[in-house]
Amino acid sequence: MIVVMKFGATDAQVNNVMERIRAAGLKEHLSHGVERTIIGVLGQIYPELKDTLEVLPGVDEVIRVSKPYKLCSREFHPKDTVVQVGGVTIGGNDVVVMAGPCAVESEQQLREAAVAVKAAGGTILRGGAFKPSTSPYSFRGLGKTGLELLAQMKAETGMPVITEVMSVRDVEAVAQHADILQVGTRNMQNFYLLEEVGKTGKPIMLKRGLSATIEEWLLAAEYILAQGSKQILLCERGVRTFETFTRNTMDISAIPIIEKVSHLPIIADPSHGTGKWYLVIPMALAAVAAGADGIMVEVHPHPDSALKDGAQSLNFENFEKLMKLLVPVAAAVGKRIASQSASSIS
Amino acid sequence: MIVVMKFGATDAQVNNVMERIRAAGLKEHLSHGVERTIIGVLGQIYPELKDTLEVLPGVDEVIRVSKPYKLCSREFHPKDTVVQVGGVTIGGNDVVVMAGPCAVESEQQLREAAVAVKAAGGTILRGGAFKPSTSPYSFRGLGKTGLELLAQMKAETGMPVITEVMSVRDVEAVAQHADILQVGTRNMQNFYLLEEVGKTGKPIMLKRGLSATIEEWLLAAEYILAQGSKQILLCERGVRTFETFTRNTMDISAIPIIEKVSHLPIIADPSHGTGKWYLVIPMALAAVAAGADGIMVEVHPHPDSALKDGAQSLNFENFEKLMKLLVPVAAAVGKRIASQSASSIS
Amino acid sequence: MIVVMKFGATDAQVNNVMERIRAAGLKEHLSHGVERTIIGVLGQIYPELKDTLEVLPGVDEVIRVSKPYKLCSREFHPKDTVVQVGGVTIGGNDVVVMAGPCAVESEQQLREAAVAVKAAGGTILRGGAFKPSTSPYSFRGLGKTGLELLAQMKAETGMPVITEVMSVRDVEAVAQHADILQVGTRNMQNFYLLEEVGKTGKPIMLKRGLSATIEEWLLAAEYILAQGSKQILLCERGVRTFETFTRNTMDISAIPIIEKVSHLPIIADPSHGTGKWYLVIPMALAAVAAGADGIMVEVHPHPDSALKDGAQSLNFENFEKLMKLLVPVAAAVGKRIASQSASSIS
Amino acid sequence: MIVVMKFGATDAQVNNVMERIRAAGLKEHLSHGVERTIIGVLGQIYPELKDTLEVLPGVDEVIRVSKPYKLCSREFHPKDTVVQVGGVTIGGNDVVVMAGPCAVESEQQLREAAVAVKAAGGTILRGGAFKPSTSPYSFRGLGKTGLELLAQMKAETGMPVITEVMSVRDVEAVAQHADILQVGTRNMQNFYLLEEVGKTGKPIMLKRGLSATIEEWLLAAEYILAQGSKQILLCERGVRTFETFTRNTMDISAIPIIEKVSHLPIIADPSHGTGKWYLVIPMALAAVAAGADGIMVEVHPHPDSALKDGAQSLNFENFEKLMKLLVPVAAAVGKRIASQSASSIS
Repeated sequence: MIVVMKFGATDAQVNNVMERIRAAGLKEHLSHGVERTIIGVLGQIYPELKDTLEVLPGVDEVIRVSKPYKLCSREFHPKDTVVQVGGVTIGGNDVVVMAGPCAVESEQQLREAAVAVKAAGGTILRGGAFKPSTSPYSFRGLGKTGLELLAQMKAETGMPVITEVMSVRDVEAVAQHADILQVGTRNMQNFYLLEEVGKTGKPIMLKRGLSATIEEWLLAAEYILAQGSKQILLCERGVRTFETFTRNTMDISAIPIIEKVSHLPIIADPSHGTGKWYLVIPMALAAVAAGADGIMVEVHPHPDSALKDGAQSLNFENFEKLMKLLVPVAAAVGKRIASQSASSIS
Repeated sequence: MIVVMKFGATDAQVNNVMERIRAAGLKEHLSHGVERTIIGVLGQIYPELKDTLEVLPGVDEVIRVSKPYKLCSREFHPKDTVVQVGGVTIGGNDVVVMAGPCAVESEQQLREAAVAVKAAGGTILRGGAFKPSTSPYSFRGLGKTGLELLAQMKAETGMPVITEVMSVRDVEAVAQHADILQVGTRNMQNFYLLEEVGKTGKPIMLKRGLSATIEEWLLAAEYILAQGSKQILLCERGVRTFETFTRNTMDISAIPIIEKVSHLPIIADPSHGTGKWYLVIPMALAAVAAGADGIMVEVHPHPDSALKDGAQSLNFENFEKLMKLLVPVAAAVGKRIASQSASSIS
Repeated sequence: MIVVMKFGATDAQVNNVMERIRAAGLKEHLSHGVERTIIGVLGQIYPELKDTLEVLPGVDEVIRVSKPYKLCSREFHPKDTVVQVGGVTIGGNDVVVMAGPCAVESEQQLREAAVAVKAAGGTILRGGAFKPSTSPYSFRGLGKTGLELLAQMKAETGMPVITEVMSVRDVEAVAQHADILQVGTRNMQNFYLLEEVGKTGKPIMLKRGLSATIEEWLLAAEYILAQGSKQILLCERGVRTFETFTRNTMDISAIPIIEKVSHLPIIADPSHGTGKWYLVIPMALAAVAAGADGIMVEVHPHPDSALKDGAQSLNFENFEKLMKLLVPVAAAVGKRIASQSASSIS
Repeated sequence: MIVVMKFGATDAQVNNVMERIRAAGLKEHLSHGVERTIIGVLGQIYPELKDTLEVLPGVDEVIRVSKPYKLCSREFHPKDTVVQVGGVTIGGNDVVVMAGPCAVESEQQLREAAVAVKAAGGTILRGGAFKPSTSPYSFRGLGKTGLELLAQMKAETGMPVITEVMSVRDVEAVAQHADILQVGTRNMQNFYLLEEVGKTGKPIMLKRGLSATIEEWLLAAEYILAQGSKQILLCERGVRTFETFTRNTMDISAIPIIEKVSHLPIIADPSHGTGKWYLVIPMALAAVAAGADGIMVEVHPHPDSALKDGAQSLNFENFEKLMKLLVPVAAAVGKRIASQSASSIS
């Protein structure tokens, strides 16, 4: 941490800052520049110290130089984390494809989707049982019935399932039925939920918040990792900008950035990332070309009668088209589309 | 709802859209423009219909013309909502001042702050017992001890208290001790929490999400209102933009907008809205000049040793200065600073 | 400037950075933290050095500690700049009101507006002769005819006039007729235009760019000041965010920030800042309460037949209402509405 | 255009709107919904009409249904535009690679870069002679000397050159030496410059503004097309968001969107789009996977001594690596890396 004094700060002000630093059990390091005096702070710094020092007289700004996250950083853990779930490896050279309907609507709808996803080469089944909805008047999911249908399709197809958990109340039920628990964008900073999912020991996929910086996203992952959990996936799903053509602006650069600063696998969700089905294929290909460890896409038997997010769902024909295009794009960057190891299928 | 067909859409496509509309139990209204055909949808529209229609062949876009929120809209409820809490009226011609430390740190700190707030003319005591923190390594509040200290200060000073509830788990405990329950910016779309606080029947203050549109914010309030609760305050506390000088960009225009489109009182929080104590006074004055029904500010006996958000906290001297400036600004727009009715003070 | 080395940077890497610094004629100052080594750079730093150092092996980041602007900073020039134009003082305790139509449309329209503005207490007449327009198919102003009409109204009413200059081609013509040259939001970083208007020696009003940080805005002002010009006004007119209710999000906090970091007067434009006439009055009051040195508002005899921006223009009745409300709000913060000194009126 | 009346609008208000529409020589089409009355406007609508109607009593909002751009839309011109420049085809199945230093610094620097770009398979040489710079104290390019050096390298290597023009003053000089004129992000809405470059008849590359919506970007292209020019390239180079890790947030989704709504070729600039050299390769691959017609990247013999933007420049080794990776990614989406036709090389 570095304290930059104001132009013209007095010696008394500088001394006061140094005393504060020492009072916190830390050491200081003084440096007089041409225009300003700068004080380095040495030792194990706690985050609140920035606030404390920033309001002292004569201080212009306080600059953090250490990263505030540790457990999820590549500096702390240089090797890639690989997540294993139901015979599927996420995080190595394989590109995992998670697909299925936005919301579980019925047994028939989910089965049709699951069969089609598997036939086309998808390896993990997604489906929402608890659905966040901006309006209280919209469809909010089948709840526990949805969880049971997911478990049933897992039994029928052998595919592991991923589904969202929205509340600490539901963590136990979701953990019982799902192979991967998803924490959604609106809950990225629901800190109690992060801790509770971390305690389950299950793989967690943490979606980026709507306007979360990469640092805030990693700090949210840190809440989960701090529970001892290590099986965490990050998922880029678009951020909020001024552009209105798309539902969100998908930040593809987050993919190589996460790869650089963290050891956690990074998944891309072009369905929510764009909100328009005809953008899903090009953006999925872009994500894989940029190094994504997997993609999550919405697939629906009949997008035009979907109860939720039909506009961003692929029909089966387009999903097959995507799977065919993914193969050479993955190969071009030295990867391959993940398949499930035979032994693991129940 | 209006369906805009693509330039060159065929009659078959237009007919297909009209059949869909009828199948949903609604009526259609056809209009051929010079360039495009437009279909109005008449009847009680459910929100998912937009998605359904948008993916039909030949459709260019679907435009909503009804507002998606009802209970919180001024069209539905033309008269201002007035919230009564512990002898303090919020939402009429009075400008309420809620003040206190960001986080409750100790009995002494809270008492000093409460006494100073009351002496300077504040009427509601704020203080955080449960604190959201971006990092798991930062101070996260005293929890239930904090709630008890707030209740004690309420007994000592007679001021009603407001504090944040972060989880459905804590709703009961917070409702027991607090006069107003605050839902924080990170939980604006924590839909289960919104419903649970709504069920308490207590006044709720709903802060705007970090990147929430005004419409999304009102829809979140709608979740609370849908539980039968009517005593809701909205709180503008800054939104996320590209600007890095301030912690957030405070959207003062949200104040007159809320006044126009909703009947709910609107409070402004310039402490979080700016993140810098020296901006709090001018922004509080601006909020009141723009029509705010109240302000919430952070006041700390010793901002430079605060455990949380010292950089944005006023010391007592500056809080007194603010209170003195607020009086003529409120008067200039036909309001006055709220005082607590004598009879209500225990 | 501070160079933060990566965790685990080698001595050779550190030495290489220090040699670079010395090669640039500067001195270095080494500091070993618990986790990282930090190198302070001392001397007259040129901005490109950051780029140069940031790509050296072992460097994590380079942090600037000096402000990149000088001439417009309060550190450099502690006293408020006061701009004098046609008997009107801008920048002291007076709040100047600039008003008039968005675009000059005709002699009659401009005269009606000018007479009404003056009668209600406005002191500077605004009116666009050259109009930026997002679409090539929209009205783009009367050009030189518009300039002549402004000069005529100045002669008739005695009010100084402000109008926008959009191109280096037109600087001379605009400078001949206008008392203040306005550089619009789209041209905030049209660096050649900034230099040319700076050379005229006339007062310049520089609007903030649509997504300009405060630092970039001040650097743009620096281009003008670097020509020797000192008579510069800054104008906050809303920035681009995700919110769609308003045309822009007006950043009222920019007003006290500019007052803190710069000596230049700050004007607020709530017409462009919101895009809706019914938000203009509350936002103008907010701006003045926050410390603005003036406001610029659009006033039109018949907003509902305006050729440009009718939706954000006040009619005469509302402008009078605004002027009446401004008086006590300005007084509440120790200011008064500016009037033109009698002697200056031709 | 559709006029949505307020809930409870009177018949007189509705009639007034209809009279206005007729007075503008247009026809109206009335539709009574359950909650609101809606009036369609039929005929050749001029853009200002929206403003005019929006301020009429009883009007809630006015919604545009026609796209405001025409000449650049795919509806108007369904076939892809292909730009031919110096034996290089841009806009078909070829992916063009434009590369070179951010700024032309010296003959030697430019020659080294040009030779390396050509050897690795690049086909168009980029280099800045006039450089926009946020600060007046930074390097701003060699100006006309830079243009002459570019012309010389074109003669030596046979590669066509692209360079930025920043002012109407310099259009003639730049058009004389460059094969493609680039309009930079800060000048996207410098409308006079757009018209002047359009008049040259030369191919133009129009970069997206820092916070320009896709619609505004296309309207800016419309200014150029309206001059009769048809050879226009669009270039996505990142937009401004809240994220601070990258210099800008590159909007890869703009690539398939432009392909859908416009016939103009779309180029991606991952150097400015990210600001960090180590993100350039993955983002260039992502852009091509998403369907880009080309990429523009900064290549410098010695990024660590570059006068401008060294942090985002590739060295020769990394540029070669990029070119090798581009080949299979382009092939995976049915394209190939463009080469220059032999006959065209002088």
